[in-house]
Amino acid sequence: MTKPLAPGSTIGILGGGQLGRMLSVAASRLGFKTCIFEPGGDCPASHVANYHFQAEYSDKEALTRFAEAADVVTYEFENIPTDALDIIEPLVPIRPGREALRVSQDRLTEKDFLTDLGLKTAPYADVTDQSALDEALARFGTAAILKTRRFGYDGKGQARINGPEDSAEALASLNGAPAILEGFVDFSREVSVIAARGLDGAVACFDPGENVHKDGILHTTTVPARLPAPLRTDAVLLAARILNALDYVGVLGVELFVTPGGLVVNEIAPRVHNSGHWTQQGCTVDQFEQHIRAVTGWPLGDGQRFADVEMTNLIGADVERCEALAQAPNTALHLYGKAEAKPGRKMGHVNRILPAQASSER
Amino acid sequence: MTKPLAPGSTIGILGGGQLGRMLSVAASRLGFKTCIFEPGGDCPASHVANYHFQAEYSDKEALTRFAEAADVVTYEFENIPTDALDIIEPLVPIRPGREALRVSQDRLTEKDFLTDLGLKTAPYADVTDQSALDEALARFGTAAILKTRRFGYDGKGQARINGPEDSAEALASLNGAPAILEGFVDFSREVSVIAARGLDGAVACFDPGENVHKDGILHTTTVPARLPAPLRTDAVLLAARILNALDYVGVLGVELFVTPGGLVVNEIAPRVHNSGHWTQQGCTVDQFEQHIRAVTGWPLGDGQRFADVEMTNLIGADVERCEALAQAPNTALHLYGKAEAKPGRKMGHVNRILPAQASSER
Repeated sequence: MTKPLAPGSTIGILGGGQLGRMLSVAASRLGFKTCIFEPGGDCPASHVANYHFQAEYSDKEALTRFAEAADVVTYEFENIPTDALDIIEPLVPIRPGREALRVSQDRLTEKDFLTDLGLKTAPYADVTDQSALDEALARFGTAAILKTRRFGYDGKGQARINGPEDSAEALASLNGAPAILEGFVDFSREVSVIAARGLDGAVACFDPGENVHKDGILHTTTVPARLPAPLRTDAVLLAARILNALDYVGVLGVELFVTPGGLVVNEIAPRVHNSGHWTQQGCTVDQFEQHIRAVTGWPLGDGQRFADVEMTNLIGADVERCEALAQAPNTALHLYGKAEAKPGRKMGHVNRILPAQASSER
Repeated sequence: MTKPLAPGSTIGILGGGQLGRMLSVAASRLGFKTCIFEPGGDCPASHVANYHFQAEYSDKEALTRFAEAADVVTYEFENIPTDALDIIEPLVPIRPGREALRVSQDRLTEKDFLTDLGLKTAPYADVTDQSALDEALARFGTAAILKTRRFGYDGKGQARINGPEDSAEALASLNGAPAILEGFVDFSREVSVIAARGLDGAVACFDPGENVHKDGILHTTTVPARLPAPLRTDAVLLAARILNALDYVGVLGVELFVTPGGLVVNEIAPRVHNSGHWTQQGCTVDQFEQHIRAVTGWPLGDGQRFADVEMTNLIGADVERCEALAQAPNTALHLYGKAEAKPGRKMGHVNRILPAQASSER
């Protein structure tokens, strides 16, 4: 399929969280229908989708029906079981493609991929056992962080190691999961680039945003990022190199550390990304619509930034401030329709918009 | 109910067209669920709503279940059968309230209401029979337009009368429906004000837009409207007077003629309005969210305009241009998910956005 999907076509989305919800809304703007595949009931995406297949990822029959109902399948998270993809792939195109998932599902594979592309990453080592861990720790010579190779997000599946004495406990805490040791990077700030590549190979990047984390979870993204012009160019070129190497179709999030020696890739996510939520208020076409355009074979849209924006996540009880936030000037509130505000759960975000200042332009 | 509805509450929407669709999307942004009541299947609003009650407005049981499922009921069109409202009203609040519907469902009642408020309208006369029509025609002394009192929209249910010789045929064309004769107004342009009133009585108006019609259907709305500052103030005060007189809760569209003698009210619509679609790209909080905020008892949001916008409707085959429009810079495309592009059918719209120019500011 190389022709653009006609409005009225159906986009299948694996995962029913807030990213699927906002993808579904963006799809509706272009006249598409959506169906969601998500084991959980009353999930955020199902509230704004045409259909919700509520089934496990191991349910082959449900996956088959889902794939048959869709004209293209995309996803809102990268940890989709391979077996599920094997059922879907013969029936309908999956975009972004499987190579992007294979690379990003495994921290070690991802780091190897980036290194092979000539990009800088944190120092890393494959940790197969205690001796491999101790050898790597000695080599890095500083504190480091032990992470599971797969299924980590928002700081989960990680153990910090401040010295050799923490080593055994850290490894034990991962319960035998395959692991990678990452050295710390001396960075001044973290930025991210939300990049898109169309079916025709066209690449478009949103203006880099500057991220601040709190308790291992993204807290704010601010545009424009404080980034010298050459690094701004580097960020875009680097993102394009990743997209092209993966023959990627869709939106990709690239987290970068800004260091005295240039940009270091922290991680990539083959999907719309929390640090791109500011585009909903700062651009005519936001990251969600850009992703929908790419996976349906439409031309990428105009993602030029026309305003300065600060995006703030509403985590857990933060959502109790929503009435006050609803009254703040220049502030757009986005809630995800989640029933219960648990600690650490992303409940919504706010985009505070300011007209672009000449002084903050590149 | 005077407390704001909590996120997670359900908003019932009568009518499943594009206005219901965009209301449903706006509701999702604030964490609300929606259910749609609409006799037609596969309707635009159902694609992005939690539930779709597909039933006739005469189906008392379906209306009861709909009302019981909702925490508040609103609507996307004013011609809702009174019997249906009688079933819903005892079960759940209807916002905007019934008085707004009573007034706006009947062109004669609406003109009397506006006149009683001290506002100017086109000259009008109740047409009960041929002699009443001929008497009014003679009194107006010019060409005029005969309209059904109820159920007219987009130029339907209207007959133009250029002289006494057209009179009998015009009356016959309405098939005995109660009618009103409206004289023409000598106006330089048409503008509209999209006004909102909260449950607490707070009033907020979007910047007036300037409308151009084609074949009796809105073609473009452009902001800012070419309107002298005093008339801009008049427009807002006049809209507020209407809102307060109706103890209105929600968004109201007010169409105004600009004449040498000041503003003349063309008509009011107790709902979000096609001429307010530009707010999706020009304001942090758009007309759809403003309406949802009002009917759920939330504070009204910041609807200040931060950009110049031109909204263009895509009518019938216009939608075939959507691929080219998708590639235009500064252009946001909105399609309604309608399966078939019939002549005169509103298929979508585009908002072309330009950063606000100092020269065009008030």
